[in-house]
Amino acid sequence: MAGDKMIDYASYTPAEVRKLIRDGKWDRPTSGMCAGYAQANLAVLPRDWAYDFLVFAQRNPKPCPILDVTEPGDPEPRLIAPGADITTDIPRYRVWVDGKCVDEPTDVKKYWRDDLVGFLIGCSFSFEGALIRARIPVRHIDLDRNVPMYVTNIQCHPAGRVKGPMVVSMRPIPASLVPKAAMCTGCYPSVHGAPVHVGDPAAIGIKDIDKPDFGEAVPIYEGEYPVFWACGVTPQAAIMAAKPEFAITHAPGHMFIADKTDVDYSVF
Amino acid sequence: MAGDKMIDYASYTPAEVRKLIRDGKWDRPTSGMCAGYAQANLAVLPRDWAYDFLVFAQRNPKPCPILDVTEPGDPEPRLIAPGADITTDIPRYRVWVDGKCVDEPTDVKKYWRDDLVGFLIGCSFSFEGALIRARIPVRHIDLDRNVPMYVTNIQCHPAGRVKGPMVVSMRPIPASLVPKAAMCTGCYPSVHGAPVHVGDPAAIGIKDIDKPDFGEAVPIYEGEYPVFWACGVTPQAAIMAAKPEFAITHAPGHMFIADKTDVDYSVF
Repeated sequence: MAGDKMIDYASYTPAEVRKLIRDGKWDRPTSGMCAGYAQANLAVLPRDWAYDFLVFAQRNPKPCPILDVTEPGDPEPRLIAPGADITTDIPRYRVWVDGKCVDEPTDVKKYWRDDLVGFLIGCSFSFEGALIRARIPVRHIDLDRNVPMYVTNIQCHPAGRVKGPMVVSMRPIPASLVPKAAMCTGCYPSVHGAPVHVGDPAAIGIKDIDKPDFGEAVPIYEGEYPVFWACGVTPQAAIMAAKPEFAITHAPGHMFIADKTDVDYSVF
Repeated sequence: MAGDKMIDYASYTPAEVRKLIRDGKWDRPTSGMCAGYAQANLAVLPRDWAYDFLVFAQRNPKPCPILDVTEPGDPEPRLIAPGADITTDIPRYRVWVDGKCVDEPTDVKKYWRDDLVGFLIGCSFSFEGALIRARIPVRHIDLDRNVPMYVTNIQCHPAGRVKGPMVVSMRPIPASLVPKAAMCTGCYPSVHGAPVHVGDPAAIGIKDIDKPDFGEAVPIYEGEYPVFWACGVTPQAAIMAAKPEFAITHAPGHMFIADKTDVDYSVF
């Protein structure tokens, strides 16, 4: 069951993994599962906040590339996974009241309301397959950890009541492979695309690379640079800053796995 | 003045061309002007329709890639051209009442309202520079015509009250250059990206390639295929289908020229 290293979850289909999750058999991060399929961040807001949030996403497409928007009250992401349910098919959620996280349940059925709109947002896990095919190491997969994520000092463009800093994910990359990592992730603009920063963490306001704000730290070896990609946890930083009366998100690293493939979001 | 072939408008800056337009000195299509800068389609809707339209755009990113969303009542596109004015800086507009075009003025100051939201949408004119640099002929520029545009039988994903067919632009491309044309425009996903169709116009519901629904016909020479790109006139087809009580758009081919460069919207 959850965490069993004998099982090759990379070869599972999205429907199989969503069922495992729905049945309570998987509550861990999803990086490396369902190779070749896109994964998505979740932000759920009341309809009253949905327009401001959507304009915020439009103004900040690097951290907030929208893959699907559900109809108010309907938990089905019809564009990217017909038949799926965003209230049950994610391993762990966060429930937010007035910008504070008040619960981290494994489903949010009891919190669902008729006025809630779900935004599915591209996730960099979607291009990790491309990195691996290019023989670029993905440290957090190799170490079976959640990806490290950091709140930066890069401010997003605000929209209405929604504002906040950009969150980034980090992967250590050998110096000689940084250009290839940039090129091959740059081909996936809808799942965060090319890195937003390479090298010195302090330059983007990260004080201690060993203490990520979300996820788990990974070692950076001699000859490697930390490489930072815009991250779909950015809406959670915006929820903390904008303090809507109610919101639901995924727990960082615990993603929705879509029926779309990574290639559906690549330019080639 | 307008149409003077002695003047090299390709070398003008966006601010210079916007001033020419604002001063009533240019009311023609903008293809080929301000080489290296991005151009944008315009759709203006009442705030009451803005959310549905924005979700429509999200669900149909090929024809409706959003570059900027203005604040209600504010005609300044702050993200892509600070200081510009979408009520005066476009050569020709269309004003729509209940889905019917009722006026085609050269400015819309008298129509502006406090509840109007402007959507600036990527335009394929933005990647024509890349085609020209790749030595791929752009027929409508060579012939100094507006690009031909067609309503297709490809239905967009609806969103709320907004629905309608995809509109495409067409450029005839020599068969041997079709792959390169696809590759080099595919690098610009925010300005429609790779073509949506190559060859037989009837396959996408176009009855007569010599009678475009918007713009002007261009000849297709021996050994060339018609190549079709998703087009930012799609919102005008949606306005005709959804019949909002009021809307403003640009006139097809008569674009807003942004301060952003084409490279700002390329993946490389």
